[in-house]
Amino acid sequence: MNKMPMKWLLLLQLLQLTCYFSSGSCGKVLVWPVEFSHWMNMKTILDELVTRGHEVTVLESSASTLIDPNKPLAMKFETFPISLTKDDFQKVAKILIETWMLVVKDYFWIHLSTMQRLFEEFSDIGIKICSEVVSNKKLMTKLQESKFDVVLADAVGPCGELLAEMYNEEKWNQFYSEVLGKPTTLVETMGKAEMWLIRNYWDFSFPRPRLPNVEFVGGLHCKPAKPLPKEMEEFVQSSGEHGIVVFSLGSMVSNMSEERANVIASALAQIPQKVLWRYDGKKPDTLGPNTRLYKWIPQNDLLGHPKTKAFITHGGSNGIYEAIYHGIPMVGLPLFADQPHNVVHMTTKGAAIRLDLETMSTEDLLNALKEVINNPFYKENVMRLSAIQHDQPMKPLDRAIFWIEFVMRHRGAQHLRPAAHDLTWFQYHSLDVIGFLLACVTTAVFVITKCCLFCCRKFARIGKKGKKD
Amino acid sequence: MNKMPMKWLLLLQLLQLTCYFSSGSCGKVLVWPVEFSHWMNMKTILDELVTRGHEVTVLESSASTLIDPNKPLAMKFETFPISLTKDDFQKVAKILIETWMLVVKDYFWIHLSTMQRLFEEFSDIGIKICSEVVSNKKLMTKLQESKFDVVLADAVGPCGELLAEMYNEEKWNQFYSEVLGKPTTLVETMGKAEMWLIRNYWDFSFPRPRLPNVEFVGGLHCKPAKPLPKEMEEFVQSSGEHGIVVFSLGSMVSNMSEERANVIASALAQIPQKVLWRYDGKKPDTLGPNTRLYKWIPQNDLLGHPKTKAFITHGGSNGIYEAIYHGIPMVGLPLFADQPHNVVHMTTKGAAIRLDLETMSTEDLLNALKEVINNPFYKENVMRLSAIQHDQPMKPLDRAIFWIEFVMRHRGAQHLRPAAHDLTWFQYHSLDVIGFLLACVTTAVFVITKCCLFCCRKFARIGKKGKKD
Repeated sequence: MNKMPMKWLLLLQLLQLTCYFSSGSCGKVLVWPVEFSHWMNMKTILDELVTRGHEVTVLESSASTLIDPNKPLAMKFETFPISLTKDDFQKVAKILIETWMLVVKDYFWIHLSTMQRLFEEFSDIGIKICSEVVSNKKLMTKLQESKFDVVLADAVGPCGELLAEMYNEEKWNQFYSEVLGKPTTLVETMGKAEMWLIRNYWDFSFPRPRLPNVEFVGGLHCKPAKPLPKEMEEFVQSSGEHGIVVFSLGSMVSNMSEERANVIASALAQIPQKVLWRYDGKKPDTLGPNTRLYKWIPQNDLLGHPKTKAFITHGGSNGIYEAIYHGIPMVGLPLFADQPHNVVHMTTKGAAIRLDLETMSTEDLLNALKEVINNPFYKENVMRLSAIQHDQPMKPLDRAIFWIEFVMRHRGAQHLRPAAHDLTWFQYHSLDVIGFLLACVTTAVFVITKCCLFCCRKFARIGKKGKKD
Repeated sequence: MNKMPMKWLLLLQLLQLTCYFSSGSCGKVLVWPVEFSHWMNMKTILDELVTRGHEVTVLESSASTLIDPNKPLAMKFETFPISLTKDDFQKVAKILIETWMLVVKDYFWIHLSTMQRLFEEFSDIGIKICSEVVSNKKLMTKLQESKFDVVLADAVGPCGELLAEMYNEEKWNQFYSEVLGKPTTLVETMGKAEMWLIRNYWDFSFPRPRLPNVEFVGGLHCKPAKPLPKEMEEFVQSSGEHGIVVFSLGSMVSNMSEERANVIASALAQIPQKVLWRYDGKKPDTLGPNTRLYKWIPQNDLLGHPKTKAFITHGGSNGIYEAIYHGIPMVGLPLFADQPHNVVHMTTKGAAIRLDLETMSTEDLLNALKEVINNPFYKENVMRLSAIQHDQPMKPLDRAIFWIEFVMRHRGAQHLRPAAHDLTWFQYHSLDVIGFLLACVTTAVFVITKCCLFCCRKFARIGKKGKKD
């Protein structure tokens, strides 16, 4: 019964699919989600599952910010009370992100200990929420009685496997062991996932080996652009043949220092394109007449607009995928988490230029924008990535749904599970085989040496005897 | 111009897809096929390509036995003359297979040198055919003028990578370098393939990492059963509720010793099922009235027949895939090549029992047949494998065609190519990194030791001086 909450897991950019419950072929899906941009991908999958007639229940804490009360959703939400308020949760997340941005900006080692402390704090909140769920007997009974077919969990923690090591891991192992009533570890429990859906694909990532229970479904949230709001469309059309530039630093960072905003605005004022900038702070003094500020922009619809020439982005994987999907070259201003990594991928593939938000000058940004807009190199490369994204045997969302339904239909996907999960660490590294071979060699050397010595002595004695005779 | 014939390659169970030519988007496919059972899979793909409107040209030597003159094919054949006759080629193949069966039957090491000599002989024939193609100027010019979009090659040699090592490899490297006019190796040339289509899938094989330019398309030749010829259907129906057993040792071995045939026939005579046995030799004396001999059987249609209870097979991958597809438990009598390996996979997955054709008794075969027919364990397991084969995001043939067309559309699939191909052997094994780190450590140790020694001496001198004072 207590197995569900194990799905609060710590890997970035992964959706983990675990089949714990079995019932008829009804298709009941329980979801353990993660806040912020991760919810975007999960929601895309859940919407499709609901469309296909499955019953979806999302577990969310009373401190969660998942639901936008203005947008009713087709799925059910099961809200459980926790002793943390929305404000508490947001505050810790905000401090964590701000420190993380410092780590990216300055040298890693200076802020390491602060980061470690903050991650531990965040991890403790995770354990706290998890523990309040598993001890909620009424909820647990209700969930158990619901007989779900599959648990879909976003296996995220800020910074993936690396952080799973940094987070006092023992703490999670101890917690998991206590709840399950048997010695286990976080990694062992994670390893029970039937299927891993990775928010990546070979347009974004570089070729490397993957296991059969891993499906790359990056870009599953991308879709053709819808028409823009009237006022926005008029502004976009007023750009003429020069077109527009779209600028957003994502949903988690909405403002910056006044000085930085002026540096940026001043660069934007010097390009012939019109600019739509998602910005929540004070209007910069250097803002040009070609630039408009918005508290929110329909990012996918703008990137899919035929007038769009470039995208200035913080390098979140969702935004990058939308740019790849619509074939828009990028200027990357990575802030934290996987963003520097994502932007490096795009620059290596020739689809973006990377700048440092904190140190760049007006001229740096201006030159980068001119380059990605006017040098066909960037457009050609991003169009090549776009072709790869569009030309797949099956769409990423359809593949994600296929494997979720497969796990429900077959009560798992054990035929895709590598035997490595069931090996001990010394078996995994072939130490038992190496040990056995070493033992064989040692024995052989020992026996041969002994034989040689024996023969030598024997011959030596015969020799002596011969001499005596 | 001389690049095409390189596609005579030496890996078993692989179809290699290489994009060498570029023209319009016409879809012109050049095929370098391999004889015998390998042709079955290749032909399935080619038929589908022709159906989808592509122009397919198959290169075949005058010694080839690919075309059945009774069955006209929709694809074009380009026959080139070689100085070897059909009989010569068949004779060498026959001797090789017979020796290989000996190797499987008895101990490997006894026949190793004979095998090595035979493989070398077979490899020399390969080089001979290859060299007669590349020196055929008329043919080469014709092919070059045809501007093909893709070369589809069956990368087979009897026994795969292992044998590529055994085959005086240098000979092939030298030959390849001569033809291309630059130093190269067989492996380097093979590594240029854009896409590898593997005749396997996770129902047959065990989960292991794979690279993105590898697609597992095992079972692509399987299809629903067609009605049987009238006389055969009557015989099958006469089996009543007991059903039938299908028995074939494949297309390459059609007879066996009289003694073995009698042992088998005697076991078959004792089961309540009717038996359809593909057998070309003298009618065994012990043949029961329930067993009929056929020179040829419609294997897929029989395995897909609702009356079929078991399949006695040599364990060729095509036959095993048909049994998986239709969910028929097996008794495996492996003879050579990958057959022992294939049968072990099926026994491990609980879908077959393995026997040794040369040593088994009548009772062994009888017991094995009774077991796979009456013990639900085998039927359940093979039905599970069948479910895995049928429940894929996309059918294996469609995936194979998709990637062939992808390579044509995009002039390759470079985004799936692992960078490992471009590393030298010491980079591949990270020896450069390890070397650098070792050098750093050595330098550090050296410097620290020197510093310590210097300090010690200095202090010692000060100490002495102090004492003097």
